[in-house]
Amino acid sequence: MSTYIMRIDCRDRKGIIHAVTGVLLKHGFNITQNGEFVDRERKHFFMRTEFTGVNPATLSTDMPDALPRDANIEITEARRKDIVVLATKEPHCLGDLLIRHAFGEMNARIKAVLSNQERLRQLVESFDIPYFFVPHEGVSRDEHEGQVAALIDKFAPDHIVLAKYMRVFTPAFVTRYKNRIVNIHHSFLPAFTGSNPYTQAYERGVKIIGATAHFITNDLDEGPIITQDVIHVDHSYGPEEMRQAGRDVEKVVLARALKLVFENRVFINGNKTVIFE
Amino acid sequence: MSTYIMRIDCRDRKGIIHAVTGVLLKHGFNITQNGEFVDRERKHFFMRTEFTGVNPATLSTDMPDALPRDANIEITEARRKDIVVLATKEPHCLGDLLIRHAFGEMNARIKAVLSNQERLRQLVESFDIPYFFVPHEGVSRDEHEGQVAALIDKFAPDHIVLAKYMRVFTPAFVTRYKNRIVNIHHSFLPAFTGSNPYTQAYERGVKIIGATAHFITNDLDEGPIITQDVIHVDHSYGPEEMRQAGRDVEKVVLARALKLVFENRVFINGNKTVIFE
Amino acid sequence: MSTYIMRIDCRDRKGIIHAVTGVLLKHGFNITQNGEFVDRERKHFFMRTEFTGVNPATLSTDMPDALPRDANIEITEARRKDIVVLATKEPHCLGDLLIRHAFGEMNARIKAVLSNQERLRQLVESFDIPYFFVPHEGVSRDEHEGQVAALIDKFAPDHIVLAKYMRVFTPAFVTRYKNRIVNIHHSFLPAFTGSNPYTQAYERGVKIIGATAHFITNDLDEGPIITQDVIHVDHSYGPEEMRQAGRDVEKVVLARALKLVFENRVFINGNKTVIFE
Amino acid sequence: MSTYIMRIDCRDRKGIIHAVTGVLLKHGFNITQNGEFVDRERKHFFMRTEFTGVNPATLSTDMPDALPRDANIEITEARRKDIVVLATKEPHCLGDLLIRHAFGEMNARIKAVLSNQERLRQLVESFDIPYFFVPHEGVSRDEHEGQVAALIDKFAPDHIVLAKYMRVFTPAFVTRYKNRIVNIHHSFLPAFTGSNPYTQAYERGVKIIGATAHFITNDLDEGPIITQDVIHVDHSYGPEEMRQAGRDVEKVVLARALKLVFENRVFINGNKTVIFE
Repeated sequence: MSTYIMRIDCRDRKGIIHAVTGVLLKHGFNITQNGEFVDRERKHFFMRTEFTGVNPATLSTDMPDALPRDANIEITEARRKDIVVLATKEPHCLGDLLIRHAFGEMNARIKAVLSNQERLRQLVESFDIPYFFVPHEGVSRDEHEGQVAALIDKFAPDHIVLAKYMRVFTPAFVTRYKNRIVNIHHSFLPAFTGSNPYTQAYERGVKIIGATAHFITNDLDEGPIITQDVIHVDHSYGPEEMRQAGRDVEKVVLARALKLVFENRVFINGNKTVIFE
Repeated sequence: MSTYIMRIDCRDRKGIIHAVTGVLLKHGFNITQNGEFVDRERKHFFMRTEFTGVNPATLSTDMPDALPRDANIEITEARRKDIVVLATKEPHCLGDLLIRHAFGEMNARIKAVLSNQERLRQLVESFDIPYFFVPHEGVSRDEHEGQVAALIDKFAPDHIVLAKYMRVFTPAFVTRYKNRIVNIHHSFLPAFTGSNPYTQAYERGVKIIGATAHFITNDLDEGPIITQDVIHVDHSYGPEEMRQAGRDVEKVVLARALKLVFENRVFINGNKTVIFE
Repeated sequence: MSTYIMRIDCRDRKGIIHAVTGVLLKHGFNITQNGEFVDRERKHFFMRTEFTGVNPATLSTDMPDALPRDANIEITEARRKDIVVLATKEPHCLGDLLIRHAFGEMNARIKAVLSNQERLRQLVESFDIPYFFVPHEGVSRDEHEGQVAALIDKFAPDHIVLAKYMRVFTPAFVTRYKNRIVNIHHSFLPAFTGSNPYTQAYERGVKIIGATAHFITNDLDEGPIITQDVIHVDHSYGPEEMRQAGRDVEKVVLARALKLVFENRVFINGNKTVIFE
Repeated sequence: MSTYIMRIDCRDRKGIIHAVTGVLLKHGFNITQNGEFVDRERKHFFMRTEFTGVNPATLSTDMPDALPRDANIEITEARRKDIVVLATKEPHCLGDLLIRHAFGEMNARIKAVLSNQERLRQLVESFDIPYFFVPHEGVSRDEHEGQVAALIDKFAPDHIVLAKYMRVFTPAFVTRYKNRIVNIHHSFLPAFTGSNPYTQAYERGVKIIGATAHFITNDLDEGPIITQDVIHVDHSYGPEEMRQAGRDVEKVVLARALKLVFENRVFINGNKTVIFE
C-alpha cells in the first residue's frame, strides 16, 4: 500500500467529482484527502486527491475516459522531491533550507547547490551537499546558462529553487524548466524595482516590507505567486535594517511555498495559483 | 434555480464522496463548491457542498440511503441568517456588526438586540433595530434567562451572537440553543481568567493580546474555537491601552467567525471545529 | 495643572535635549513622556515631550533661545482634536470612526461629515453629526472644492480625515490644509493604480492585500506614510471578496493612524514620517 | 571615538534627563540615540542612551552624583556580546542562530554550544563552534548543573541562550546567571503546560499557536517576556504539523529577542520588560 497524489485540471462540467471518485473506487483505491476548486471566470476545474492503494497504473485508461479530453492528469507517488538550489551570496534562505534538510524537516532532497559565487561553498559543504561554482564572468550569458543547465540536468531534479540567485534567466532556460522554478523575491509595498530596492523603500518611508515566493515564467515580470508575507518596520530602520528584516521574512515565505510545492498542492492557473492547503 | 448548502458528517468509510455526488448528479443538481475533511483520529468524515438546482426535497430519501446510518445530513437554501445579538455595555463589537448589517455586508439579518443594560439603546435604535432591555437586577437568574429566552424565541433566530454579553448562561440555556450561540472572548497569551483580565495581562507584561470567537457549550470552559487572532503591545501599554487594543482585535475576530458561521462553513467536531473556508 | 505636548524639530547638534529639558525644569514643568529621534542622513533632530504644569506661555522666549534658529517648536495643550470627515459612499471607515467617536474611544470630535453623495447621510445623522452633501455634478472642480473648503473652514478643524473620499484634490486645496489631511488608501502588494484595483489584484493572483494611511501632499503620489497593514487572501477570493477583505484592513489601519496623529505623535520628515509611539 | 551605551534606572523624579544629559555634555560626549520610559505605577524611571566619545570612565563620579542614590547605572562599550548556547536535540533555533552567526548577522559571538545530547554535534562543529556534550544520565542534578556551569564560566559569556534546552534549572543556577539567561518557550493560546503541549493544543482545537522569548528567573514560572508572536493553524493540522509550525515561529521570536538583548535594549522591570526598540 502506497500513497499517491492525483492532480487533475480541465474545463468544468457537471459530474467530474463523481466520475473521478468512481474510477478510484472501482480500482479499490481509498481517498484520504481531497480538494476541488472551480475558477468560475475561466470555467476551469482543479482537483487534488490523495489516495492509498497499489499500482495506480490501472487508472491509466479509465481516468482519461472519465474526464474531458483536454484534462491534465498527473498521478505520482507521494515522495520526497529532488531539488537543485541556486544561490548567489546571501546565506539566509539557503541556510534555512539546509538546516531543515539536514534534520528531515523538508519534503525534499537537496541534490546540489549551484552558485555564480564561491562565498557559500563552506556553508553548503559542511552539510555534505555538493557545491558547484559556475562563474558568469568571462563567458557569454548563453554559455553560462548552458553550464548551469547541464549541471542541473545531471541531478534530474523535480524542482529548481532560487534561494536569492541574483541572475536573470533567458526565456529558453525558463521554458526548459517550465513551471518547475520557484523564486523568492524581495517585494515591497509599494513594489520597488531596480538595483537598490531597500534604499528605495527607506526613501519612501514604508512601514511594512514584504516577500513573495513565485514560479518563474516568461509571461510576466514575476510569475504566479505562491506565498507572500510582510514584516512591520518603522522610521528607525535604515536601508540595512530593512534589508535584515526583509531577509527574515524572505526565508519564512520561501519555506512555506516550498512545503506546498513539494506536496503537490500548487496548481498554476494562468498567471495565478490555486493552492490546496 | 437556487443555491443550496449540504452538510454531511458521519463515520468515515470508502466511497462516500462518490455516493454523495452520485445522488446529486442523478437528481440534476450542479455542484459549485465542495470541501471534505477526514478526522483521522476519530475516523470521522465531514463534507460541505454548495449546489444549484430546484427542489432539494427530492434528495430526502436517496441521500440518507447513500450514507452510513449515523450520518448527519443538513440541506438548507443558501440564505441570510436571522440572528439576535446580546450585548451588555461595550459598543465596539455590536457597532461593527450594525454597520456591516446596515450596508449589506453581513450575511445575516439582525432581528433584535437584547441587553441587560440600557447603555447601547440609542446606538441600536439609530439603525432601526429593536432593542430590548432585560434587567437582571431584582430577578433570579432563572427568571432573567427565561425572559431572555422568551424574547429570543419570538425572533426564531438561526444564531445568537454574544457581542460582549457579560452574563454567564446556565446549562439549560446553552442546551436550548445548542451549537447556535457564538461568543467573542478576550483571551490573552497566556490566558487570563477572572474579573480583570487586562490588569492581569498588564501585570504579567505580555507582548501580545488576543481574542477568540467560539461556540458556547456546557462541555468545557470555552467551547469549540472558530477564529483567533492577536495584536502586538509593548511596555508602554497600561491596562486601559491593552483593553482598547483588545477591542480592536475582538471585533475583527468576531466578524470573521460570523462570516464563516453564516455561510454554514463551520462544523463542530467534539470540542473543536472543522472549517471549510 | 494641565498636560502639554511640545514638538520640536531642527537640524541636529550637540546638547539639544539638555537645553530643552533645562528650560522645562527652570519653568517648573514636569516631563511625563519623552521621545527623540535623529535622522542621520538629513542630520535632523525630532523631539516630542509631554509635560505637566501651568501656563506654557512662559516658555515662549526661553525655548527658541535654547534651540537652533531653524527650529520648529509647537506647544499645545493635550486635548481632543476637532476633525471634519470627508467620505463618498463606502461606510466601513466612516462607520468605524462614528462608533469610536460616540463612545469616547477616539481622541477627537467629529464636527461634521462632508460627502459628494447622499448615501451616508442616515448613518451620520443617526449619530447626531451634521452631514453636508456637496454634489460635484454640474459645477466646476474649483467651484466644488471651494464649497468643500468653505464648509471645512466653518468648523476650523485640526485635521481633515478622508474616509474613502473618492475625489482628487487640486494642489491649491492640499496646500491650504498642509500636513493636516489624512487619507486611507487601498494599496496592494504590488501596488495597483487605476480605476479597478481589486480586479487587478485578483487578476494578478496576489496572496495579500493591504492598506496605507498617509498624509496628502502635492510632492508625491501618496504622501508620507503613517501606518500600513495587510490581510491574507487566497485563490478562492474573487474581486468582491478581496474588496471586503480590503475594507476590514482599511478601517483598522486608518484608526491606528488617527490615534497617532491625534496624540501629536507623527512628524512629517520630507516624504516620510517619524512616529513616537 | 567609540560608541557607548548607558542604561539607567531609578525611582522617578523631576530633572533626571536634564541632569544625565548635562553630565554627558560636560564631558564632551555626543548622544546619538536616546530613550526614556517612566513606569507610572512603580514611579520608576528607565533610560537608555547611546553616545560617542572617548573614555567614559570620566563619568564614574559625576553620573552617580547626578542621580538618585538607588540608581542603577551601567555604561558599556557597544560591542558584540559573547554567548554560550544550550540546546538539547531540536535544531531549528540553534541552526538559525548558527547561520546568522556565520555570516555576521548576529551581534554576538557564539563561544560554545552545550548539550545534554550528542545529536547536534555535527551541525555545530560544521560551523567551527566548540560543542560540549554534558550528559545528565548517571549524575545527580546538582552534579550536572555544576559541570554545565563550569563550562559556561570558562567562556565568560555575557548571555546564556537556551535554544530549546529541555532541562529545568535549579534556583541556584538561575541566581548565578541572574538576568542573563534567555529562553524560547512554546507558548500556546491558551497556554498549555505539561509534557505534550502540541497534543494538548491539537485536542483543544486552537487556531493559533505561539512562542515566547523570556528571561529565566526564579520568581515566576516564565520570567519577564521579551518577544512573542503567533502563527495561524487550522483543523487540518495534527500535533506534528502544529509542532512544525511552532518551530517556525519559535526561531523567529528568539532571534528578535536576542537582537534586542544584545543591543542592550531590554530592561527587566520586576516580572516585565521595558524595551527601547
